[in-house]
Amino acid sequence: MEDIFKHIDDNLDARLKEMFEWLRIPSVSADPAFFDDCDKAAQWLVDKLTGAGLKAEKIATGGRPAVYAEWLGAPGKPTVLMYGHYDVQPAVKEDGWDTEPFEPMIKDGKIYGRGGADDKGQVHTHFAAVESLLKVKGSLPCNVKFIVEGEEEAGSEHTEALIRDNADKLACDIVLVSDSPMFAAGYPSICVGLRGLAFGEVVIDGPGGDLHSGSFGGGVANPANVLVQMLSKLHDDQGKIAIDGFYDDVVELTPLQRKAISDLPFNEQDFLDNTGSPVVAGEKGYTTLERVWARPSCDINGVISGYTGEGAKTIVPRRASAKVSVRLVGNQVPEKSLDQLEAFMKKVCPDTVKMTFIRHHTGQAYLGDTSDPVFVSARKALEQAFGAPAVEIREGGSIPIVGTFAEVLESPCVLMGFGLPDQNIHGPNENLHVENYHKGTRAIAAFLVEVAG
Amino acid sequence: MEDIFKHIDDNLDARLKEMFEWLRIPSVSADPAFFDDCDKAAQWLVDKLTGAGLKAEKIATGGRPAVYAEWLGAPGKPTVLMYGHYDVQPAVKEDGWDTEPFEPMIKDGKIYGRGGADDKGQVHTHFAAVESLLKVKGSLPCNVKFIVEGEEEAGSEHTEALIRDNADKLACDIVLVSDSPMFAAGYPSICVGLRGLAFGEVVIDGPGGDLHSGSFGGGVANPANVLVQMLSKLHDDQGKIAIDGFYDDVVELTPLQRKAISDLPFNEQDFLDNTGSPVVAGEKGYTTLERVWARPSCDINGVISGYTGEGAKTIVPRRASAKVSVRLVGNQVPEKSLDQLEAFMKKVCPDTVKMTFIRHHTGQAYLGDTSDPVFVSARKALEQAFGAPAVEIREGGSIPIVGTFAEVLESPCVLMGFGLPDQNIHGPNENLHVENYHKGTRAIAAFLVEVAG
Repeated sequence: MEDIFKHIDDNLDARLKEMFEWLRIPSVSADPAFFDDCDKAAQWLVDKLTGAGLKAEKIATGGRPAVYAEWLGAPGKPTVLMYGHYDVQPAVKEDGWDTEPFEPMIKDGKIYGRGGADDKGQVHTHFAAVESLLKVKGSLPCNVKFIVEGEEEAGSEHTEALIRDNADKLACDIVLVSDSPMFAAGYPSICVGLRGLAFGEVVIDGPGGDLHSGSFGGGVANPANVLVQMLSKLHDDQGKIAIDGFYDDVVELTPLQRKAISDLPFNEQDFLDNTGSPVVAGEKGYTTLERVWARPSCDINGVISGYTGEGAKTIVPRRASAKVSVRLVGNQVPEKSLDQLEAFMKKVCPDTVKMTFIRHHTGQAYLGDTSDPVFVSARKALEQAFGAPAVEIREGGSIPIVGTFAEVLESPCVLMGFGLPDQNIHGPNENLHVENYHKGTRAIAAFLVEVAG
Repeated sequence: MEDIFKHIDDNLDARLKEMFEWLRIPSVSADPAFFDDCDKAAQWLVDKLTGAGLKAEKIATGGRPAVYAEWLGAPGKPTVLMYGHYDVQPAVKEDGWDTEPFEPMIKDGKIYGRGGADDKGQVHTHFAAVESLLKVKGSLPCNVKFIVEGEEEAGSEHTEALIRDNADKLACDIVLVSDSPMFAAGYPSICVGLRGLAFGEVVIDGPGGDLHSGSFGGGVANPANVLVQMLSKLHDDQGKIAIDGFYDDVVELTPLQRKAISDLPFNEQDFLDNTGSPVVAGEKGYTTLERVWARPSCDINGVISGYTGEGAKTIVPRRASAKVSVRLVGNQVPEKSLDQLEAFMKKVCPDTVKMTFIRHHTGQAYLGDTSDPVFVSARKALEQAFGAPAVEIREGGSIPIVGTFAEVLESPCVLMGFGLPDQNIHGPNENLHVENYHKGTRAIAAFLVEVAG
């Protein structure tokens, strides 16, 4: 491994220079003005992968193309599918950048530029690791495939079809994703859990039209009064979700997992500063990190009824509606959770109004089976590469593609990312620490060696 | 009384013709294009009152003028101040009228035309009664003052000042208002109660900005979750308002009042058809009429938070707010009720968010002291004029001027109106039954005789 690490170390400056070429291509997938640049960024990667010795191609989708590449010269060894995306969020200097977003530069040990962390810089660690291995050893220790999409920042509209339509081509033993942050500097991290989602909407209809609240208030049901009563029942007084059967498939944290989470240097004040909230709050009996990582939550994402302009208007509104979503963990099945939410709303809705339930989207939670040897490999690789113990973390949000991979490819998924919480993806001054780019490249190389056994 | 009634009966056609002249003047106070017509309508009334033998004048306000008139030739007798308004709601045939709104006509026993019921036609009963008395008897049985405003349909912006600035001129023993409906055809009605109002707004602030509900849901308080919890506590499970001390000044219905209300031919299905609601609902233990007439109610008039567009957006909203009003009855003091609402909201607001309470307007409830002899006079007058028993009714909404009269003039107020529930004021085909116009005129004349003793 030392020869590989040495090659990566010695070539760091050249690698950064090469990666900066890619960052300069403004591959903004949400804006048609940049569709040509998306094509260019995809072609850039195809050329690089081809130059490194892989069989690479663009795959057409209904939108921006994906890049696929493979090196299958290690029969009998496992196949690792490496996922990432080359498209980026929009960015102009006027958004508050200190530098031009598409003129990457290094300052105070950080690479500043759109896509540096999300996700070109991280995809480049995959490429650099593979090319270094091929240069030093002439071959890879295992089979490798790349799938790098170009619509992640625009809703991944065609990505699920891409995976399903190319399931045979993408067949693998392990999926590796680098599109999540580390816990903190000096804490190489494996993300072993993502929360899922079930999103619904409750519409309460009462009178045929808005009524005068003087003439009719107290005479008929007010849909807004009814709706707040219904929604107030979603939580019990311990902050637990009161939907019947909701926790049936929740996987409880083990004492060891709870200890591991509590051992992390989580700074609650930083968390509050980050949110602007006065205090933390939520389900009793769990720490803040446990709540956002490993416990379900239920949020009213929007609610509207009646008159919401300036001043006062004395009406009984004819309708009230709320968007309600639940975040899911462990083995919770999104469609089942949405059924439960709908059934609960029906149960608590009085017969004085008419209720309609609209089903929006769902997303599968992800919980890595950390007893799988691939997690041992990941941990070893990170520790070798970073010279520090690896930690297991989770993420409260969803990465929908992970669920699709699990379902279609039936392979364990390792989430090993190298950004930091202050990486500012989607905002101005997006950045990736040079040290984490460098050690991340070492970690990917070490991981490929480790999984080869 | 028979000579007076006979004069009114014999002159009905001429009276209607005269009143139609007035209805043809489109005195729409909300539209500057009709301000000249408002002046004309005011002058028309001044001329008529002068012609009948009263001392009449226009009083300038900051907006449309008011009409004042007096006949004070009965020293030692009580003084009755008759209130109404000459301005009308906008109307064009295209709104759905079967006839031209400012070309009054009679069809199926009803006077169709804007202002027929609200309120020129009713003011004309006052004028016709007074003129008939003067013609037949040469004098009035008591002193009479008219105050007829021209801004009732445009918010009565200058009316409170008008009353206060002219308190000496308007001094009286009894206020008579004909601007409310009868319970039903054949039920001459005295309105003995109006509900008051206190209107507030609750604003809940949580995070500094909308947060991603994946990364933060369950970590900090969601203002929408908090707000629905707070609002859900406004009512107990009996539909009673749970605000501390709220019922302290409510005047309970007496068994006799409850019986009188239950004796009225209230048709619940008509009420539901009118509202479009599936069923009646509200405080347990009271009938629908009792609830909207004589019980307080609490309505969320509007609520908004987070994302309310199409589809789904996974956020923890930074803010949630609701407009909340209470309808008041009996001796409830609006400012006190608003204090109680504010204090309750503070009490049920957790310290995980920041709450702001905005105070909107208030309005005094009205509850006639029906033991006052003036109500006996009103009842007798109605029964003589209509040949049917008079009923006591209430109205769930507010007529703010009534509170101002009570406070400034310190006189009992009698609300005796002659429209019907299907009179369609403010809508197309506004109408007043000829029979009720006719009998209303007789009732006003009889009332003036009755109060003179």
